[in-house]
Amino acid sequence: MILHNAVLTTLSGDEGYGLIVDGAIVIVEDKIVWVGAACDLSAKYDHMERHDQGGRLITPALIDCHTHVVHGGDRAVEFEQRLTGISYDEIARRGGGILSTVKATRVATVDQLVQSALPRVDALLSEGIATIEIKSGYGLAPVAELNMLRAARKITKLRPVQVVTTYLAAHAIPPEFAGRANDYIAEVCLPTLNAAHAEGLVDAVDGFCEHIAFSAEELEPLFTRAKALGLPVKLHAEQLSHQRGTAFAACQGAISVDHIEFATAEDVKALSNAGSVAVLLPGAYYTVREAQLPPVSDLRKYNVPIALATDCNPGSSPMTSVLLAMNMGCTLFALTPEEALRGTTVNAARALGLTDRGQLAQDLRADLAIWDVRTPAELSYRIGFNPLNSRMVGGEFQ
Amino acid sequence: MILHNAVLTTLSGDEGYGLIVDGAIVIVEDKIVWVGAACDLSAKYDHMERHDQGGRLITPALIDCHTHVVHGGDRAVEFEQRLTGISYDEIARRGGGILSTVKATRVATVDQLVQSALPRVDALLSEGIATIEIKSGYGLAPVAELNMLRAARKITKLRPVQVVTTYLAAHAIPPEFAGRANDYIAEVCLPTLNAAHAEGLVDAVDGFCEHIAFSAEELEPLFTRAKALGLPVKLHAEQLSHQRGTAFAACQGAISVDHIEFATAEDVKALSNAGSVAVLLPGAYYTVREAQLPPVSDLRKYNVPIALATDCNPGSSPMTSVLLAMNMGCTLFALTPEEALRGTTVNAARALGLTDRGQLAQDLRADLAIWDVRTPAELSYRIGFNPLNSRMVGGEFQ
Repeated sequence: MILHNAVLTTLSGDEGYGLIVDGAIVIVEDKIVWVGAACDLSAKYDHMERHDQGGRLITPALIDCHTHVVHGGDRAVEFEQRLTGISYDEIARRGGGILSTVKATRVATVDQLVQSALPRVDALLSEGIATIEIKSGYGLAPVAELNMLRAARKITKLRPVQVVTTYLAAHAIPPEFAGRANDYIAEVCLPTLNAAHAEGLVDAVDGFCEHIAFSAEELEPLFTRAKALGLPVKLHAEQLSHQRGTAFAACQGAISVDHIEFATAEDVKALSNAGSVAVLLPGAYYTVREAQLPPVSDLRKYNVPIALATDCNPGSSPMTSVLLAMNMGCTLFALTPEEALRGTTVNAARALGLTDRGQLAQDLRADLAIWDVRTPAELSYRIGFNPLNSRMVGGEFQ
Repeated sequence: MILHNAVLTTLSGDEGYGLIVDGAIVIVEDKIVWVGAACDLSAKYDHMERHDQGGRLITPALIDCHTHVVHGGDRAVEFEQRLTGISYDEIARRGGGILSTVKATRVATVDQLVQSALPRVDALLSEGIATIEIKSGYGLAPVAELNMLRAARKITKLRPVQVVTTYLAAHAIPPEFAGRANDYIAEVCLPTLNAAHAEGLVDAVDGFCEHIAFSAEELEPLFTRAKALGLPVKLHAEQLSHQRGTAFAACQGAISVDHIEFATAEDVKALSNAGSVAVLLPGAYYTVREAQLPPVSDLRKYNVPIALATDCNPGSSPMTSVLLAMNMGCTLFALTPEEALRGTTVNAARALGLTDRGQLAQDLRADLAIWDVRTPAELSYRIGFNPLNSRMVGGEFQ
């Protein structure tokens, strides 16, 4: 089919929106076969079905490249406790914090995990998303980690969305391994990774490098195993303090390093040399009232691709709007609207190791978002408003 | 009809959620005639139609008590210019800032203003709102100010929502009166107020007391005229600096004073004595990257009711989500989720001078929001997620 009478935001090349004001897109099956100005459309496509887009703006479909959207329970009660002045320690004593999510996740079946995730997934899709990354990491035990990944894989069968799964058993140290991080990695994370990989559940391996979680040294055997299995690695690093996770991840050739509020210029140079994507997560920055800004000017200086994601999770970012992540990227991190849009399309694809989407170009997947806006800047400008007109995933209107 | 099998968040009394776990509401025409525990429901209602609410949470419908939702144009281009490093001065030279909205508003017809506002109104309604305040203030000339108010009145005929109009000609000094604030008040604001009032377009009168707008002294004749016409007054005060607007407004018996980041403890005492509501606008605080927090602990100490609103406007708060205003009230201003909910229900009603809504109680309007959540805290906890199941306005499901 041909989509015509549209303003195309192709994002071709390394900068600029790549706008085509009176554009057309030719789609065959699930692929884009031609993109350009309507006046240049070849007569050989004359027989194809034409869809008038009424002058609307078309972008690549959005990609949420960092989510924990599958999990048990919620943390609304804890959110309220904190705001009524109850201390973190007391909340932990009452069973709050990440371990409350672990407890709720461990007792959930795969179907229960799927059912509780679907309203969050639907909220994301309603804003023009066609690809979501979903991490494990609230099971922290073999079966529960596998179940999270099984739930993530199942979502792609229930909704028109492609799901990329990330194995994040090294998210926190479960109470039964308190003080024994190395044992947890060796006894749980490594064998469960083998099992998950054997079941076809893992697209990438992730960890949380932080003083409350794992050191780079503790994570090394996990990344070594990941690479032995041919799986790409990525890392939550430098979120709350500087722990040398960014340098470690870059050295390991990570496809992305995420959060990085506390990364230094040296860290950014290492990311640049490694070709890693910096995934910024303004929803978490906002929710934890962080004061340290990520090193945006260094990322620009050293040409590190910047992605943006919701970090949708029940504790530090209960956010299900990628458009809001774009607005926060601009408002809180002073990204430009163009950087915000590249951050949720072409650079988000790259953060997931995907080369077949994220731009409007020949041979890429026909994953499109069609918007009732006049300029691409409007997608980042509005707060809590969804101007999506329609969404195409793999060549099919949803 | 009877709504039953619901968790009621009545907000009765001055604090607490007023939860009724297995509650019922009896509705006759547009009013609530009974609220209580299902087991206490009188047999005299046995003949009425029953609607099972499936255990959902019911709150009073939400109220957005401070919006500029009617206006011409948008400011997405300016948002982008700012983020690409263009200075405020240069943006102003290129015709940006509030005057670009004034220009776009002046050339719009009433119908064009209505059509451009409706998507924003619909976004608000989708989150369980039944009452919206809408201000004029981008016309800054007689016909354009009247047209904004006419557009606001028209919205209530096109959508199931009650609109409260506020006359805000004293929002900025138009270029043709530069340096002549008193003349603008005398020659435009006062006669246009008379005309708007005569046409039945005005429910309250507002002004912007700030160094870039009007001083308290300049606003005095306007408030005097408002009171002569029997109209309540309110004020944008202490948003960017301390200008004594709060003390002035309190002295004038304002029903609300809005923004107030720079208000002092003395100002808060004055609000308390006057019985004014403090309307906090976290969307504007967030968008302008303000560092000065509103005096929340003083507001609590002196029992000043706190309301929250979107401040939906094209420049400093292009926000159309009252749930997000609630989350920002908690996250940025450290309000409790209960304060956030009272801020968009009972206290928002009070900020508009309305005594017939904002709680679940006998004789109040049957304006209800029915939510797919387990606890009222969840309404403030999530970011960019809409758990509304259904909405009732004046006794009718929408």
